[in-house]
Amino acid sequence: MKAIKVGLLGIGTVGSGTFQVLRRNQEEIRGRAGRGIEIAMVADLDLARAKSIAGDACEVVDDARKVIANPEIDIVVELIGGYGVAKTLVLEAIAAGKHVVTANKALLAVHGTEIFAAAHAKGVIVAFEAAVAGGIPIIKALREGLTANRIEWIAGIINGTTNFILSEMRSKGLDFGVVLKEAQRLGYAEADPTFDIEGVDAAHKATIMSAIAFGIPVQFDKAHVEGITKLQAADIKYAEQLGYRIKLLGIARRREAGIELRVHPTLIPAQRLIANVEGAMNAVLVQADAVGTTLYYGKGAGSEPTASAVVADLVDITRLHTADPEHRVPHLAFRPDAMSDTPILPMAQVATSFYLRLVVADQAGVLSRITTILAEHDISIDAVLQRESGEGEKQTDLIILTHETLEGRMDKALTQMQALETVLAPIVRIRKEELA
Amino acid sequence: MKAIKVGLLGIGTVGSGTFQVLRRNQEEIRGRAGRGIEIAMVADLDLARAKSIAGDACEVVDDARKVIANPEIDIVVELIGGYGVAKTLVLEAIAAGKHVVTANKALLAVHGTEIFAAAHAKGVIVAFEAAVAGGIPIIKALREGLTANRIEWIAGIINGTTNFILSEMRSKGLDFGVVLKEAQRLGYAEADPTFDIEGVDAAHKATIMSAIAFGIPVQFDKAHVEGITKLQAADIKYAEQLGYRIKLLGIARRREAGIELRVHPTLIPAQRLIANVEGAMNAVLVQADAVGTTLYYGKGAGSEPTASAVVADLVDITRLHTADPEHRVPHLAFRPDAMSDTPILPMAQVATSFYLRLVVADQAGVLSRITTILAEHDISIDAVLQRESGEGEKQTDLIILTHETLEGRMDKALTQMQALETVLAPIVRIRKEELA
Repeated sequence: MKAIKVGLLGIGTVGSGTFQVLRRNQEEIRGRAGRGIEIAMVADLDLARAKSIAGDACEVVDDARKVIANPEIDIVVELIGGYGVAKTLVLEAIAAGKHVVTANKALLAVHGTEIFAAAHAKGVIVAFEAAVAGGIPIIKALREGLTANRIEWIAGIINGTTNFILSEMRSKGLDFGVVLKEAQRLGYAEADPTFDIEGVDAAHKATIMSAIAFGIPVQFDKAHVEGITKLQAADIKYAEQLGYRIKLLGIARRREAGIELRVHPTLIPAQRLIANVEGAMNAVLVQADAVGTTLYYGKGAGSEPTASAVVADLVDITRLHTADPEHRVPHLAFRPDAMSDTPILPMAQVATSFYLRLVVADQAGVLSRITTILAEHDISIDAVLQRESGEGEKQTDLIILTHETLEGRMDKALTQMQALETVLAPIVRIRKEELA
Repeated sequence: MKAIKVGLLGIGTVGSGTFQVLRRNQEEIRGRAGRGIEIAMVADLDLARAKSIAGDACEVVDDARKVIANPEIDIVVELIGGYGVAKTLVLEAIAAGKHVVTANKALLAVHGTEIFAAAHAKGVIVAFEAAVAGGIPIIKALREGLTANRIEWIAGIINGTTNFILSEMRSKGLDFGVVLKEAQRLGYAEADPTFDIEGVDAAHKATIMSAIAFGIPVQFDKAHVEGITKLQAADIKYAEQLGYRIKLLGIARRREAGIELRVHPTLIPAQRLIANVEGAMNAVLVQADAVGTTLYYGKGAGSEPTASAVVADLVDITRLHTADPEHRVPHLAFRPDAMSDTPILPMAQVATSFYLRLVVADQAGVLSRITTILAEHDISIDAVLQRESGEGEKQTDLIILTHETLEGRMDKALTQMQALETVLAPIVRIRKEELA
């Protein structure tokens, strides 16, 4: 059987990894897929670099549309990134009847509905294992491995940059800014790290997982996105004293009223396996009704780990492209006619417990006033930690862990607490999840 | 589209879980699979119990062959277990042109070659996600998710009973026999726990994974199988002092000369994620050339976790049964004509490092004689720990960690050390893996 022909749009880090993996493991891959998989054409603006990676056996062009127009090409791999030209090219590839593989989480989280509808209408596959958690086959696990289950929630460390920074802040007791510079020096953070550290990248991935888990459309605009830039070393330390680690989690959870979809720093019990995921590694924890808790761990980025997912998609398509489109795995796990309109909840209706740190005047009655405000808003307290104030100090840190409450209630309580004269600085508020 | 019809052979724990899951989540499953999945017939010798689980909508018989002979049935689910009648019925179902789903690891590890060949010849699928690590979709991850990779090694905690016992021994400092009784009382160990505690169950699963990872036939008879019955609380304690945990691992590793396939208690660094998998949970660590390290964690047994895997297989078959058999995922990841004859290595050629505990006379020169023997066999020492002997005590414990060596060499060195007059008891030898 002749090899399946692949065209690459963009040959940066992931593209060159895909080349290397397909070349190095071509025999094993053919033995598994039943036919060869061959990158026959590459489009990249940097022709010289593209040629040095692709070699002589592969046509290199600077116009992506030549790849899409080539009737020999069965699958187009989009590795350009972003929502701009990538979107146009993906839609054009679909219109040309090509299957598409993409690692572009931003594109799918924002324009997935349009793209998947176009693919469905045309009977082609858009595969995107590489778009969430890099080399970890989490899309396959959610869409196929856990297909028997009603998924209750997903909580993932799905951004390596921020997990590296948080790991370093904790182990070395350093502040965010210092560690960010270190991460940039080591290549764990980009020169412009905004998308990572502000939680946007994690929110793209959480959005895609929420759609697959609950059969809802991708709705990035409804996601709550909060990064780690305001996190202080003091809070990481206090959390540790209370038995918790702080991780940037992407969370999608089914509640009776709707779906929670949020990315924010989160306290999680230190004994949970996911709390011990360190450095740039990713991990996704899934709670589902039949199987219970499962966890998937691995490298969420990098050239070959991401290529591992791209090639897995190429093999899947190689197997399935002769199959009746109606029998393929649906893009978002559920078939289009079985999608749900369950709403994504506004943050005020989201239920979590909280870690609060208040800088308070060291005088009698302060704790009582604060706990009274919490009680008035039906927020019950789980634990209190008060730092012993030093000799002659007039203020101290008061840390409160609450039980689960609605964010809207906490917002109101916080406004009242913040107004107290004895509360001397902006209150730090970090959400807490038991993940059990 | 009419529902796909399933026949169940045996309706015990997993069978009733499968019923519950299919019934409770039928809408979601239909929304994902594109058609309903319905258990239309059940065979079980205990008719009354079977009827109470299956209800009225399902035909219940006491003769499995009636299920196999029923032309309405598309898929036969074998949940009888063991190598006896289960083998005959699976082969008969295949011969009758039925797809088969089975959770029977013993059957596949021992008779897989015959069964998969029969299925291939007949063009039907034998699906077995539930046979390894219960609800964790590890077969799918290995066969499909990591299909781009050359797999280097797999190390798994794939028996919940023994992991529960080891967790309890460590956390409570108790001996094996005491904890086994507790595990039996709590239902984590069976009345006859031999298959679990002697490592046979883990070896069945490791055998299946080795075939999928390396494209070799299942060869349970070549697996080295060693359980946890001889493990002493003292060794768990010493291991902990040295920074290690002891887990029963199923290991399959590719070496230049062949494949290592072995189950035995293993020291692993305490900071590895897999070292922190506690209780009856399972976890499989996979090292592969493109993706690096990935880990899959969840419940390895139980009614609904196992049913989660059975139903995932039913959905896969529902999707694929109309596809050309040549385009399906091969049973053992590689297509039959791409299988390899790489041999499984005898233990003497297996490379690991070792933990040794010697009870030695507390006198000068003992350590020197022992280290000389190790050096003579080219075994280098990583760490030594000597228990301080108590007042008037004439013997002490000497713990040695070695660097990697061949098991054959260690056997020879052990024979010589054991013969020393100053070595007062049988030497304890536990293998150690860094898993990095």
